[in-house]
Amino acid sequence: MSDLNRRAVLQGAAAGAALLSPASALAQSGDEKAFRAAVEKGHDAAITRLQDWIALPSIAAENRDMQKGAEYMAALAKDAGFQTAEIVQTSGHPGVFATLDAGAPKTIGLYFMYDVKQFDPAEWSSPPLEARIVDKPGMGRAIVGRGATNQKGPEATFLAALHAIRAAGRKLPVNLVLVAEGEEEIGSPHFHEIVRRPDIAARLKQTPCVFMPFNSQGPDGEVTVNLGAKGVIECELVASGDAWGRGPAKDVHSSLKAMIDSPVWRLVEAMKTLVSPDGNTVVIDGWDEHVRPLSAREKALIAADARASSEADMMKALGVKHWIGDLEWLAANERLVAAPTANIEGLVAGYTGPGGKTILPHKGVAKMDFRLVPNQTRDDCVAKLKAHLAKRGFGDIQVNVSGGYDPTETAEDSPLIRTTLATYQKLGITPTLNPRLAGSWPGYVFTGAPISLPAGHFGLGHGSGAHAPDEYYLIEPTNPKIAGFDQAVMSYIDFLYSLAASKA
Amino acid sequence: MSDLNRRAVLQGAAAGAALLSPASALAQSGDEKAFRAAVEKGHDAAITRLQDWIALPSIAAENRDMQKGAEYMAALAKDAGFQTAEIVQTSGHPGVFATLDAGAPKTIGLYFMYDVKQFDPAEWSSPPLEARIVDKPGMGRAIVGRGATNQKGPEATFLAALHAIRAAGRKLPVNLVLVAEGEEEIGSPHFHEIVRRPDIAARLKQTPCVFMPFNSQGPDGEVTVNLGAKGVIECELVASGDAWGRGPAKDVHSSLKAMIDSPVWRLVEAMKTLVSPDGNTVVIDGWDEHVRPLSAREKALIAADARASSEADMMKALGVKHWIGDLEWLAANERLVAAPTANIEGLVAGYTGPGGKTILPHKGVAKMDFRLVPNQTRDDCVAKLKAHLAKRGFGDIQVNVSGGYDPTETAEDSPLIRTTLATYQKLGITPTLNPRLAGSWPGYVFTGAPISLPAGHFGLGHGSGAHAPDEYYLIEPTNPKIAGFDQAVMSYIDFLYSLAASKA
Repeated sequence: MSDLNRRAVLQGAAAGAALLSPASALAQSGDEKAFRAAVEKGHDAAITRLQDWIALPSIAAENRDMQKGAEYMAALAKDAGFQTAEIVQTSGHPGVFATLDAGAPKTIGLYFMYDVKQFDPAEWSSPPLEARIVDKPGMGRAIVGRGATNQKGPEATFLAALHAIRAAGRKLPVNLVLVAEGEEEIGSPHFHEIVRRPDIAARLKQTPCVFMPFNSQGPDGEVTVNLGAKGVIECELVASGDAWGRGPAKDVHSSLKAMIDSPVWRLVEAMKTLVSPDGNTVVIDGWDEHVRPLSAREKALIAADARASSEADMMKALGVKHWIGDLEWLAANERLVAAPTANIEGLVAGYTGPGGKTILPHKGVAKMDFRLVPNQTRDDCVAKLKAHLAKRGFGDIQVNVSGGYDPTETAEDSPLIRTTLATYQKLGITPTLNPRLAGSWPGYVFTGAPISLPAGHFGLGHGSGAHAPDEYYLIEPTNPKIAGFDQAVMSYIDFLYSLAASKA
Repeated sequence: MSDLNRRAVLQGAAAGAALLSPASALAQSGDEKAFRAAVEKGHDAAITRLQDWIALPSIAAENRDMQKGAEYMAALAKDAGFQTAEIVQTSGHPGVFATLDAGAPKTIGLYFMYDVKQFDPAEWSSPPLEARIVDKPGMGRAIVGRGATNQKGPEATFLAALHAIRAAGRKLPVNLVLVAEGEEEIGSPHFHEIVRRPDIAARLKQTPCVFMPFNSQGPDGEVTVNLGAKGVIECELVASGDAWGRGPAKDVHSSLKAMIDSPVWRLVEAMKTLVSPDGNTVVIDGWDEHVRPLSAREKALIAADARASSEADMMKALGVKHWIGDLEWLAANERLVAAPTANIEGLVAGYTGPGGKTILPHKGVAKMDFRLVPNQTRDDCVAKLKAHLAKRGFGDIQVNVSGGYDPTETAEDSPLIRTTLATYQKLGITPTLNPRLAGSWPGYVFTGAPISLPAGHFGLGHGSGAHAPDEYYLIEPTNPKIAGFDQAVMSYIDFLYSLAASKA
C-alpha cells in the first residue's frame, strides 16, 4: 500500500469542519477529558516509541531483521497491554498473534504489519532510520523515516491510544485480537498461514470485524473510506536459455546473435501477448471471465468522488497529461476502480550499467504486477497466465509468483463500515466512499473464506511518501483540518468506544 | 572485440607445427639469434611493463582515468623508441598519435587501444588490476587482469619487440605511425577525428597498411585471419513519459496503471517491430537494402572453416543446444558471417533490485547493438532505425547512439593479407581465412574513405576472457603449439621484417 493507492492524491477538495466535535461517542462517555490528559502526558513517550521502532527496519525482500522485527512487534503489543503475544512462524517470515482480554463483552480484530519497504538512504534528505522530527514547509512538524506513514506511524498511534486508556485508569471498552505480518510489502505470501491457524481463525471469527490503523487523511484533511481493494499478483517472468533449451546458457558475445537465439527477445515477444498493443488491456486468455461489472451504486460513488476531486491537481501531482485512451476524468476514475491491470514494475536483462556491453544475455526478467478485481482470484489468474504462455509455445518462461492475493470487499451496510462512517461524522468529517481501492491490501484473508468478516481501515492523521524517499507522518500539522498525533490517538479511542457501542 | 568475435572458440581443430621454423624472414636475416637473446633478456622488464599498464585501467564508459591513460600510452610509445607521441584531444576522450622514424624506406601504420572494458572485482578469482601471474591448469602460466588479452597484452608484446630490436643494436626495418584511441570499448565514437586529422591522415596514407597487435592463437594454437569485420551500432532506445507526452513523468504507484499509460509497455511494443517474431531477423524498413550477399569465394572460405572446426565443441563452449532456426553447422556459420543482427544487450526499467516494487515506471531503456555487413553503413542504418520507429508512431522513443561504425573489409589479395599469411606460414602455422569477423573493430577508419588502406591484425600468442572476469594472457603455455610471451615478441619482429621485405 502507499499514499497513492489510497487515492489520497485523488482528493482535491477540502474536507469537513473542526475535529473531535462534542457529538463524538467519546465525548458522550464523559471520559474525554481524562483521556485527553493521558494522551498529552504520554505524547513524548509515544513519539519515542515510534522513533525506536523505525530504527529497526524489517524488510522481507532483503531478509533484513525479520525475526527481530517480529519480536519487537510482540514486545510493543505486550507493552501496550496485550496479555499474550506469540511469534507465529510461517513458511516465510514470522508474524505475531496477540490478545488483549479487557473483560469486555465484545472483541475486535486488528491487523498490523511490522515490515517496511526497501529504501536507499542516499535518496533521503533526512536519514531514513533516524526518524527525525523536521519542519515540512506548509505542512507542519513531521517524523521523517521509513515506515513513518506505512505503517508504523498509524500503528504506533493506535498503541498510544491503548497506553492512554490504561494511564487514565480505564479499561478498554473492547477486547482485542491482533494478527501482524512481516511480509506485507512483498505481497503477504504467507499471511494466510497465520490467520487460518485453527486457534487464531477461531478467535478472529468471534469478532464482528477486523481493522488496520491508518492515517486516513489526505493533505487537505479529507478522508476516503474504501469498501474493498483490488487483489494483486506480483511475479517475475523469466526467460532463460537454460529453461528454453535454445539460446546461450551463459552470457556470450553479442556478435553470436547471428547464429544464437536470444532469451531476451523471447521475453519481449511473450510479454507482448499479455496486453493490447497500447499496453492497457490485459488480453490473457479468459482473464476477464470472472470480472464483475461495476454496479449502479459503485458507479454513483465513483461519479461523486470524481466530481469532488480535481483532475488538474491529480494530473499535476502525477506528472500526467493524458489518461489512458484520452479518457475523460469520470471514465478514468471508473477504470481505476474497475479494470484489471498488467503492469511492468521493472525489466532486468543482461548488462544494466552505464553505457553498453556487447553481450547476448542468457536471461531476461520482467517484474510484473497484475491487479485483480472481483470475482477474479489469484490462483485462477496465475493458472490462466501460465496456460496462456504455454498455449503460445512460451511454456518455458517461468512465472515466479512472489506474492499476491484475491480482491477484498466489505459491504457498505456492514457494521464496520457503518461504525467507521458514523465515527468520522461525529469527529466532524464527511468521508468520501470509494467502492474499491485500486491498490491492494491483504484484506481477503479476513473477508474471504473461511474467516468471512468485514475488514477495513480507520484513523485520523496524515502522512505520505510510502515506498518513496522522505516518507513522513505529520505530528503537528499546520492545517487545522488535519489531526495531529494526539488527535489521531484520540480518534482511535473514539473508534474503540464506537465499536463497543455499535450493534455489530 | 573479444575472444568470441575473433572466432577463437570456433576453431576446434589443432593447428600447425612448431613455431618459428627456420624458413622465417627473420631467420633468413641472420639476426634471429641476437634478437632472441635480447627478447629473453628483456622478458622480465616487458612483463613488468604490461603489469604496470594493467594497473591503470582507462574505462571510457565510466570516464575513468582517460587523460592519464592517454598520457601513459604516449609514454609507453616514447619508451619503445617513438620519437614523437602526441596526446590528441577529440570531442570525446583523447587518443595518441606517435611516429618512429627509423630511416627506413617503408612506413607501416599501427592501431592501438589503451582503454579496457568495465569489470567487477568481486567476480574475479585474482584481482583484476594486480595482473598476477597464475597457473592456469592445463593452460600454463598466465597474466590475469583486465586488459590482459584485450588489448594491452598483445600491444605490450609488440612494444617489447621494439625494445628488443633496439637492445640488439639494430634499427627497425620499417618506420612506424601509431594511432591509439581510448574509446574502443564504447564503439570508437571519436576515433575518426584522430585518424582524419589532416596531418595524421597524410602520414597514414603514406603507409601501405595498418595493423593491430593481436594474440591470434586459439586454445589449440590455430590462427584465423579475418578479411574484414561487421560494423556495429551501439545505442539505447529510451521510452519515457516525458518524451511521449503520455504516461507518468516520474515513477508512480502501480495501481495507477488502470488509468495511466506505461512507457515500458510502449518500449516493449516498439522493440517488437524491429525483428521477426523469433528475434532473429532485422525487419526495420529497408534494413537489407544495401546488404551484399556472400560471394562464392566467401562461401568457400566459410565452408572450409566449418569443416575444420567442431560444432560440438562450439556448442559446448557456448552452452548452446540449437543454432537459430535449427540451422546446420555450415548454414549457421554462413549466417554468422552474412547476417545483420539486432541484439538486446540489456534491459533496464523501473525497479531492478531483489523482489518486486509496486511502481509504474516513467522510463524504460533497451541497450542494443546492431551488427552491420557490407555495404550497410552506420549513418544510413541509424537513419533507417529512426524512420522505422517514427513511421509506426514511436518517434518519441529516443535512439541514443553511443558508438559504432561501418563494416570493414580488406582484400584477400592485398599486400597486408598476403604478408600476414606468408609470415604465419613461415612461422609454421596455416591460418584459417575468415571472410568476415562477426564482431566488430573500427578498421573502417582505415579501410574506408578517405584513408582507404588495408587493415588487419597480426600476432602470435593466446589469451581469453575479454570483457569477462579472469581475463588472461598466456605467458608460458603448456601447449607447444601456442607461442609464449617471448615467441610472440619474436613473431612481431618477424612480421616487421616481412613487411619491410614485401612488395607493398
